[in-house]
Amino acid sequence: MAGVTSPSMPVWMIRNTVRGNRTFCTLNEGLGKVLRYGANGPEVLERLRWMGGTLGPALQKALARSGPIALKPLMARALHMGDEMHNRNAAASSLLFKLLAPALLRAGIAERTAAEVLDFINGNDHFFLNVAMPACKAMLDAAAGVPGSTMVVAMARNGTEFGIRLSGTGERWFTTPAPFLDGLFFAGYTKEDASRDIGDSAITETAGIGGFSMAAAPAIVQFVGGTPREALAHTLAMGHITLWANRAFTIPSLDFSGAPAGIDARKVVDTGILPIINSGIAHREAGIGQIGAGITRAPMACFTQAVVALEEMRRAQESAGPA
Amino acid sequence: MAGVTSPSMPVWMIRNTVRGNRTFCTLNEGLGKVLRYGANGPEVLERLRWMGGTLGPALQKALARSGPIALKPLMARALHMGDEMHNRNAAASSLLFKLLAPALLRAGIAERTAAEVLDFINGNDHFFLNVAMPACKAMLDAAAGVPGSTMVVAMARNGTEFGIRLSGTGERWFTTPAPFLDGLFFAGYTKEDASRDIGDSAITETAGIGGFSMAAAPAIVQFVGGTPREALAHTLAMGHITLWANRAFTIPSLDFSGAPAGIDARKVVDTGILPIINSGIAHREAGIGQIGAGITRAPMACFTQAVVALEEMRRAQESAGPA
Repeated sequence: MAGVTSPSMPVWMIRNTVRGNRTFCTLNEGLGKVLRYGANGPEVLERLRWMGGTLGPALQKALARSGPIALKPLMARALHMGDEMHNRNAAASSLLFKLLAPALLRAGIAERTAAEVLDFINGNDHFFLNVAMPACKAMLDAAAGVPGSTMVVAMARNGTEFGIRLSGTGERWFTTPAPFLDGLFFAGYTKEDASRDIGDSAITETAGIGGFSMAAAPAIVQFVGGTPREALAHTLAMGHITLWANRAFTIPSLDFSGAPAGIDARKVVDTGILPIINSGIAHREAGIGQIGAGITRAPMACFTQAVVALEEMRRAQESAGPA
Repeated sequence: MAGVTSPSMPVWMIRNTVRGNRTFCTLNEGLGKVLRYGANGPEVLERLRWMGGTLGPALQKALARSGPIALKPLMARALHMGDEMHNRNAAASSLLFKLLAPALLRAGIAERTAAEVLDFINGNDHFFLNVAMPACKAMLDAAAGVPGSTMVVAMARNGTEFGIRLSGTGERWFTTPAPFLDGLFFAGYTKEDASRDIGDSAITETAGIGGFSMAAAPAIVQFVGGTPREALAHTLAMGHITLWANRAFTIPSLDFSGAPAGIDARKVVDTGILPIINSGIAHREAGIGQIGAGITRAPMACFTQAVVALEEMRRAQESAGPA
């Protein structure tokens, strides 16, 4: 379920209707020179002002008119339409657009404003990413805090470090230096310009979409590199380190098998198979923005630390004696 | 390029901008009880009146505002989004919706009417089919009339006979009894209720999409039956009976190879591989409508007749002596 708050910096508001927990995310600005990749020039600020003053309030009115949007069926449909919802959101953005357009029209918004809003969403195939991320977080937060659980409930990177959280180890982050990405660069940039892996978006992989569901999105290799066969292989490999196949998110090309979901840190350590992540690439210098997209792996050190920490918790509990 | 005329029975107007030829098609009514499948009850007629009086004029105004829509890039994108554009048009319909929505908004159409129109398109994932068909015909008509050519430029069925036309044999149809389809039936119907293969929609296969591009649309098997692997096999097999791969329409899961396009009647006869067609299934009795969807093959007799006829033309020309 999604709502939007405003003004100034509007955010999507996602509610896990089963568990009641809520998550939030800013609205997607598009590619290239955008604040979330460190760009901060006048055009970035101008767009953000428009998003705060026009886009946010318009979406808020539209959603008040339409009521909350059920995201799980929308995301399931998008997986059947070639999206993996991390770096390919063309279908999900279109499906969201189809729900928002009639609502915008019925919400009594000035024609010119509504048309501007539709053009903006229309022109940004990544618009749904900032809905997919908090939707994944809303699912994963519900799995946090299970004693003894080795399930990974968050993976995140800040351009310097890569960190994960396990369900059984609370709010502690297990970190190590973030990797670089292997991928495709926008015209004029090379890997020399790239920062280390950065951003919260690996929450999609943590939930079983993104890199984990690349078999559903063969066309994504035109954006992140690699081949359709590798995309297929990534999804199959992820089945070895996950706890289950998510039957709500099926992958047609794999006979509608469920997306490999719920990374088990123990299985990562046991098999040596590292979680695949496809992601955008930021320029190493602040102010420039996104310069490409590619593929990387979550580093092993996070998982070994996490599994050791969980074992230490178990031993500490054991030596404290039965409750 | 698309336009729409009205009132009473509005039609899409497609122009081949290279050759200048034009084609036409009614607007898609949806699934189930619809006129194009023989249903003619009050709700069918009421919908048609609304389409003639409201939908058609609204689209005409929107297209006057937006200008003609370039269909080839839209169709190419839809192939990357899991459509094959015969029985799966979810992505193409969404992409068309995204172009039409802002244009409807800017065309000065009453808010209530515009919202009704958006709801209608939104609720019909087959809306683009009636654009895809004339787009395919516009491409194929440009290939008609090439002396000696064994390229198939039309395949059509009328519920009784199946017919094809070759480029080199003019307007003559080569016909044989139409086959039945093997497929999935809507609740309450079985293959006993089915008519023989019917409709103009095999023009999509003739142009290399539809059944020929099912590898791009693994999710379609939930609608027409079969497995994703069979869908892949169909596309690969069609490569043996076609003249080329259409580089404008690429299939991501096959390493972005072009859709197998331009059926060569001689190759069909030589290999014994029959063109695959996925299609809707009509009830055998008039007035009921569509009762399912499935897969069939174009019958061999059409191709043998056509190849023989072309050879007879060649001999007649030879015996008439050099020009």
